[in-house]
Formats: sequence, C-alpha cells, structure tokens
Amino acid sequence: MKSHIIALCGGVGGAKLAFGLTRLLAPQDLTIVVNTGDDFEHLGLSVSPDIDTVAYTLSDLADRERGWGRKDETWNFMAALSALGAEDWFNLGDRDLAMHVERTRRLAAGEPLSRITADLTAALGIGHPVVPMSDQPVRTVLTTAGGDMAFQTYFVRERCQPVVSAVRYDGAAKARPSPALAALLARKDIAAVVLCPSNPYLSIDPILVVPGVRAGLLALGAPIVAVSPIIGDAALKGPAAKLMAELGVAPGVIALAQHYDGLLHGLVIDHANAADAEALRALGVRPFVTDAVMHADEDRLRLARETLSLAADLAQPALEHR
Amino acid sequence: MKSHIIALCGGVGGAKLAFGLTRLLAPQDLTIVVNTGDDFEHLGLSVSPDIDTVAYTLSDLADRERGWGRKDETWNFMAALSALGAEDWFNLGDRDLAMHVERTRRLAAGEPLSRITADLTAALGIGHPVVPMSDQPVRTVLTTAGGDMAFQTYFVRERCQPVVSAVRYDGAAKARPSPALAALLARKDIAAVVLCPSNPYLSIDPILVVPGVRAGLLALGAPIVAVSPIIGDAALKGPAAKLMAELGVAPGVIALAQHYDGLLHGLVIDHANAADAEALRALGVRPFVTDAVMHADEDRLRLARETLSLAADLAQPALEHR
Repeated sequence: MKSHIIALCGGVGGAKLAFGLTRLLAPQDLTIVVNTGDDFEHLGLSVSPDIDTVAYTLSDLADRERGWGRKDETWNFMAALSALGAEDWFNLGDRDLAMHVERTRRLAAGEPLSRITADLTAALGIGHPVVPMSDQPVRTVLTTAGGDMAFQTYFVRERCQPVVSAVRYDGAAKARPSPALAALLARKDIAAVVLCPSNPYLSIDPILVVPGVRAGLLALGAPIVAVSPIIGDAALKGPAAKLMAELGVAPGVIALAQHYDGLLHGLVIDHANAADAEALRALGVRPFVTDAVMHADEDRLRLARETLSLAADLAQPALEHR
Repeated sequence: MKSHIIALCGGVGGAKLAFGLTRLLAPQDLTIVVNTGDDFEHLGLSVSPDIDTVAYTLSDLADRERGWGRKDETWNFMAALSALGAEDWFNLGDRDLAMHVERTRRLAAGEPLSRITADLTAALGIGHPVVPMSDQPVRTVLTTAGGDMAFQTYFVRERCQPVVSAVRYDGAAKARPSPALAALLARKDIAAVVLCPSNPYLSIDPILVVPGVRAGLLALGAPIVAVSPIIGDAALKGPAAKLMAELGVAPGVIALAQHYDGLLHGLVIDHANAADAEALRALGVRPFVTDAVMHADEDRLRLARETLSLAADLAQPALEHR
C-alpha cells in the first residue's frame, strides 16, 4: 500500500501545516522537503531561514507570537553588534545563532547541507526527516526597478516594498535534488505530494525548478495537492498577493492553480474563495473548501487531516482500478 | 621630550594595568600592544581573547567579578549550542559573540587584524590605540606529556592541568610586527616600554619573539620596565608559577628577571618579594617595591603611576648627560 507523504515547504505558513502533518503521520510516513532558495550568507554565517523555521516549528521552539525565530529568545548579540557599527538589518537571536554558527562551521568543513540539517533537526528532537531541496546553493533573486535583489534583502531589509518584475533562481540549473529528495522521487510507495501553504514564487517554485523535481513529482503517479496560502485575494502572510499583482495576475486561488500549470490535482482553499470552486474544477483541480487559516494547533491538525483526505479521495480511482 | 609609552599586554592582569595607564596618559602618549598568540579559530570564528579582554577592560565593559568576558552577559547561544550537541567547552557570551562574528567576517574579507582591531576598539569608545603584535597568525603551542596542545585547549579545556615541558610560537618566524608596532619601533620619542603583569611565557614572549620586536624595543634606548605577575612564589592568576616550576625554574621575581634575560631595566614587585630586591639589583634590574595586587581602580592607577615613575627614574641619568 502506498503510504509515504512528501510535503514541500517554505517558511512560516508552510511550517504550520508541516507541524500538523507530523502530528498525524509517523516519521517513516512523511518527509518534509524544504526550500533553500532564501538561504544566504550574512555576517559570514550561512543562514537557512526556511529550514530553521520548519525546525523550530516542528520542535515547538518557534515563537508563535512574533511569527519567526525562537521563543524565549534574547537579542544581546544584535545589540552588541549594532554598538560595533556592524550590519544589523537582519535580526539574529542569541539562541538562533547556534544553528547558523554550527551550520556554517560544518559547511566550511565540506559537509553537505542535508547531512547537517538531519543532525540539527534530530538534535532538536524532530523525528520526521527534514530535507533541504538541494545541497547545491540555489538563490532566489528578484528583479526590481532598483535592480536585482537577493531574497532576504527584498524580504527583510526592504520589507517587500520594491515592485518586482521577475523572479529567478540563480544556481538552479546546476543544482541537483538532495540525496534524500532524489531517493523520494525513486520510491514506488508515495501516497501523495503536499504543497504546504507557502509562497508559490518564493518558497515552492525554487524547489520545483531544481532539475528533475517537477517532472519527478508528476512521475510518482500520486495525487499532488496544495493548500492555498491565498485567502480571498490576499496572502495570509508575506508578499504572495502583492507579487502576483506585480507579475500581472489577479491574486487568488485561480491564479495559484494556473501558476502551477498542470501540477496540481487538488487544492485546499478557504471559505473566502468558495466561489472559485467550480472554476478550479474546470481547470482539472479538485477543490476542498474549509477554514484555511491556522490559528492554533487544532487548526494545523484539522487542515493537515483535510489535506490528506483530499489526496486520498484523489487517489481513489486508481485504487478502484486495481 | 620623549613622551610616548609602549605597553605590552596579555589578558586579565595586564589589561588592568593598561586600564590604569589609559587613565594617566592621553591617547597620543600611549600605545597598547597586545598578544595574539592565544588567538584561535573556534566553531569557525576567529577569537582573539587578549585583544577582547583589553578592549572590554579599557571600555569598562569587562565583568570584574568573573574575571573574563563582558558584564551583563547572557549565555543563550551557548545553551542552544550545547543542545545541538556542538562543541561547548569554550564559553562565548551572547554579547561577546558580536566581536568574534564581526572580526571573522572582516578577516575573511581580507582585512588585516590591526585595522579590524582599531575599528572595533574605537566603536567601544576606546581612544588609546590597541594594536595586535602582528597581523600574521602566531599560535602559542604547549608541549605536554599528552602531546602538543594549542593554548586555549591547554588553558580552557584542560584547565592548565597538563604538565608542560616546552612552549613554542608557531608562525612567529614568518610573522612581522603589525604596521602600528613597526611604526612605534621606528619612533624617536619613546619614553618607556612597560611589560604589563601578564604571563611571561604565554603573553609577553609571543610578542617578543615576533622578528625584530625584542631587538627593536632594546634599540629604542628607553627604559624597559615590567610589573611582576608573580606575587611571592605564586601567580596572582593563571599558570605562570606552575609553568615556571614545570620548566625547571623556581617561581619568583628573580626567575622572572632572569627569564627576560637582559631586557629589563626595572621591575615592579610586590612587598611579598621585597627580600629579592638586592638580588634584582645585582642582575642590573632596578626594583620598585609596592602593593602589586590590583583590586580596585585606585590600585590600577597607583600601580600605573608607580610603574611610570620607576621608568622616569631609570631615564634620569640619560637626561643628566644631555
């Protein structure tokens, strides 16, 4: 019986659904593949924001109030750094720094990101595999009126203000799926692929453009379902809707389904988008209408359960043919 | 008139006297040359313990109670690092980390340690020049029964327990005095050289063995005076006396003067060593007997004043000959 779930995940919103999935599925039944397109080198440190957000969320070390970083965090490193006149636009908490320093040390020693990530997440008590999409650097770059901008510069320093005319993924052409992702794509027991509610351009596409990943996911023959990060015509968090508008598409779940262009079999949408259900069906994407906003753990679990049930429903015809 | 003072300095004890000197002398009248022999790379960070101790002491950011590191320090980075299973034998405070991260970043960008040190100490509000002995790496290595040991491994991880049979300074032969130190050695207005009360083997010798330094200091024609880090037959702090015994000399101020072998014109010693005053004179070293233990700021200033007065006395005959 097909039993393994692959979840593709970016930062905050995606990590919440991943949390729900880890509470429903045993470690051997779920792999979380994480975007590394917004990784960057800052102050000489190798920072992997999405991996760390996923790691902190799954280990319940995340600060739920602030929405990023670790809870019980202190900021004395940043205060001392500012006093030295050093670059201080990217906040690095004192506890959070441990991840960056240890990752940087091991990368410099020649270890692959995926092995380091496996060890760090295990050390945080996470039983489910958390897998970088690639061990080669892929860097999301945004073309703006002010020139090309690295993701974190756009996202954190410029607070998503610049108008974006294009998004590209430097290094993607030469990247390979990480060994764990490559192994997933070769498995015969994948029950479903879940695209967590992360930004399509900035979190999911960087994973899909790694050579072999998009085609490999389709070739699994498993239902591919997404949870919409768009509620109504706005993103719950982050610049997804703003980006869509700037890239010339009307922000919404139709545009989201069209963006994935034949990849999706199903899409979990919020009640606010219920009116688009029929149009989604017409696009060949089965909708599941629910409350797609995750406030508490119950929401994370419920949404994860609903997503898996949509995927199971989509798999049903295949089962009937057996 | 000769007016500039050069102070050679290691960590804690030496930094206290340097603090006293900075309160007596204007920035243009004093340069503090700091040992970098115990610098090391840890967790991928370039740590310069003596430079930082001097910087924190002079800027009054040092933790006087603990005796090292910064006051109002927190340790959340270390706690998180330990939880990750990373190396945690060397304590790095959250605020202290800012110095290492910024130094590491700039060294990796190709900047020399002396320029970085000038900027970091200026950012901490220190007006007096703090100068690394060299921009090239010199690494103090101790030969022990258990094999060769890097300084911090011996000092921090092994808590000075191993018996030392020799001390060497890797890289010293290829090192050059830092530009600021080289410029000092070329000046004609040096009034005195002060060896701060730091470990002779582990803090002062690494400076003296940089090619050209010892001979250059003697060639200045200025009195060279030291403040003894040995009180009675024990070191006030650290392994100086233990090292002396292991290297086959009776710990004390006579051995200290003999160790410097013709370099010293004067030596400030504690009342506990007053009985050795005559023997020091016989060695050609003028003693100054005082309370050589620095408890409070008053002690630092008094000892600095007494040290400068000893140097001035030693310079007197030269003045009489003019």
